[in-house]
Amino acid sequence: MRATYMYGAGDVRVVDAADPKIEQPTDALVRVVRACVCGSDLHPYHSMPPSAEGTPMGHEFVGVVEEVGAEVTSVRAGDFVIAPFAVSCGACEFCRAGLQTSCVRGGFWSDPGIGTAGGQAEAVRVPLADGTLVRVPVDEGADDALLASLLTLSDVYGTGWHAAVTGGVTEGSTVTVIGDGAVGLLAVLSARQLGAERIVLMGRHRARTDLGREFGATDVVAERGAEGIERVRDLTAGGSAIVLEAVGHMPAYEQAVGVVRPGGVISRVGVPQYEEAPVGFASLFGPNVTLTGGPAPVRAYIDRLLPAVLDGTVRPGRVFDRTVSLEETPKGYAAMDAREALKAMIRP
Amino acid sequence: MRATYMYGAGDVRVVDAADPKIEQPTDALVRVVRACVCGSDLHPYHSMPPSAEGTPMGHEFVGVVEEVGAEVTSVRAGDFVIAPFAVSCGACEFCRAGLQTSCVRGGFWSDPGIGTAGGQAEAVRVPLADGTLVRVPVDEGADDALLASLLTLSDVYGTGWHAAVTGGVTEGSTVTVIGDGAVGLLAVLSARQLGAERIVLMGRHRARTDLGREFGATDVVAERGAEGIERVRDLTAGGSAIVLEAVGHMPAYEQAVGVVRPGGVISRVGVPQYEEAPVGFASLFGPNVTLTGGPAPVRAYIDRLLPAVLDGTVRPGRVFDRTVSLEETPKGYAAMDAREALKAMIRP
Repeated sequence: MRATYMYGAGDVRVVDAADPKIEQPTDALVRVVRACVCGSDLHPYHSMPPSAEGTPMGHEFVGVVEEVGAEVTSVRAGDFVIAPFAVSCGACEFCRAGLQTSCVRGGFWSDPGIGTAGGQAEAVRVPLADGTLVRVPVDEGADDALLASLLTLSDVYGTGWHAAVTGGVTEGSTVTVIGDGAVGLLAVLSARQLGAERIVLMGRHRARTDLGREFGATDVVAERGAEGIERVRDLTAGGSAIVLEAVGHMPAYEQAVGVVRPGGVISRVGVPQYEEAPVGFASLFGPNVTLTGGPAPVRAYIDRLLPAVLDGTVRPGRVFDRTVSLEETPKGYAAMDAREALKAMIRP
Repeated sequence: MRATYMYGAGDVRVVDAADPKIEQPTDALVRVVRACVCGSDLHPYHSMPPSAEGTPMGHEFVGVVEEVGAEVTSVRAGDFVIAPFAVSCGACEFCRAGLQTSCVRGGFWSDPGIGTAGGQAEAVRVPLADGTLVRVPVDEGADDALLASLLTLSDVYGTGWHAAVTGGVTEGSTVTVIGDGAVGLLAVLSARQLGAERIVLMGRHRARTDLGREFGATDVVAERGAEGIERVRDLTAGGSAIVLEAVGHMPAYEQAVGVVRPGGVISRVGVPQYEEAPVGFASLFGPNVTLTGGPAPVRAYIDRLLPAVLDGTVRPGRVFDRTVSLEETPKGYAAMDAREALKAMIRP
């Protein structure tokens, strides 16, 4: 089959790869119907050291089950499924608690221990299929907009939702969202769904922030740095009680610390591109600010989010503004990297 | 009057100072009945640069009101009062929300803007007396043990309580407390009061951890570093859902990260002696660990904690194992620094 590998920063290629097949009785084989490029794929796109063997890419896809191992009971050949960005067993303490990203048997698609390739490919062997996949009552002939929205449930919508949930958004909340990428925009949508009254979106790409307004942002702040912080603090009368950080770079963290209100919460879902950050008296400790978030257990949220997607009440798939074929996947990366595309969908 | 000043690391002196007097109509003048040395006073004791003018010390005291300004209504001359370690107005948004340490008009005793000296003195001018002081129906002739326990409500008991509350301790919780100083031990007591079932205390001073057991610790881990982490992870079947960090040094933070369970909470109340710390994928983000805590708004907790202190159900004052006169205050610092004393009380 054809599959996408990254061989170093800026070096994405679609190559011939071994056809996946059932290896464990708990596996399922899924033919990919839609996949996409994630904002987090841009981090290695900027920094991956060169390698000859490459790394399989892609952790977001929906598809049709082609075959299942002998022990798989929840899906069968022909089922349309959403594959969350983490593999999870569904049975361990963490899966039962809704923290599938900490599953003791699972992991991320490209983890060596998971032993499967990425979703930017024609097909994927899905380990722990019962715990990982979610069957959805549609078929691959469903309309493009619906498929796009279902695809967001594999990562970006669930990730935006996780930000809002761990940030404690509730009826009447004031929320600031940092980042106008797909996750930031879907954090806006999620905050709105959870009842937030005031949603300030920090972002400076007009087309994106316009979509953010449609998703529920009440204010947009295009400024960054000290100026952006001052604007948000003005708009929120001294700081935002809840800040959702959907970028992952240090300046975004610093923005979050700058705009959060004493006693407030910073919820991070952008994958941190730093290990150390300010947390001492002058940043988090002094004003009793809580830092929370992490990789979203999107598997835990799909049941909650699916109905409004299926009935069209929400259309998170609007974050896709570019569609490429599998062979054109490198163009999808390049377009997102150049910010010509917000999020690129791949149609194998 | 006589008052305690620090002139640099290790250099604490009791000196003649101007008698405090009412300066604002919202002030009260309090004669100190008991004060004490805080674990956090040891941080400048180790690191303060030398200065000729010195810094007034002490932020924990109980005493008797001698005089009040014209606008003070909640206390009057003769009242016995507890002075929390932060000055607060009682009226602003943060005070009303129970976050008096972020009061927009208040501050800490030694903040230049607060304009008053510290509590390790014969008397203190208390700004914003109505919002700051808590009247208690006892008199200075009350027994020593009760006065000691009331004194803990000015800081260490409320701080341990804050750790437990912001950590989310509830009926049946498993909690690990890092640090066997007064705050750590009172975090144990607080966790027990809030219903924690399993309380692991990390500390290696036998007399202190014995008191920790009396306060409710079910296990004591004396080991530190990797060995201590492994012991706690064994005891808690893979990590503690709640970790209360009551030290403030980087190794304690690292212990907290090492023993916390995926999806768990680290609540810090030890004043951080670092500004940057690990918070990225490998520490907090990957396992969805929440970092919370900060300076305790002890003013918010006194009403809740006072009854059990007054009726003797709890005896947090047991953390004091040394009493000195005001003139001997430098000896109190030295004894705590040498770990010969857990916490030194000052009887002016």
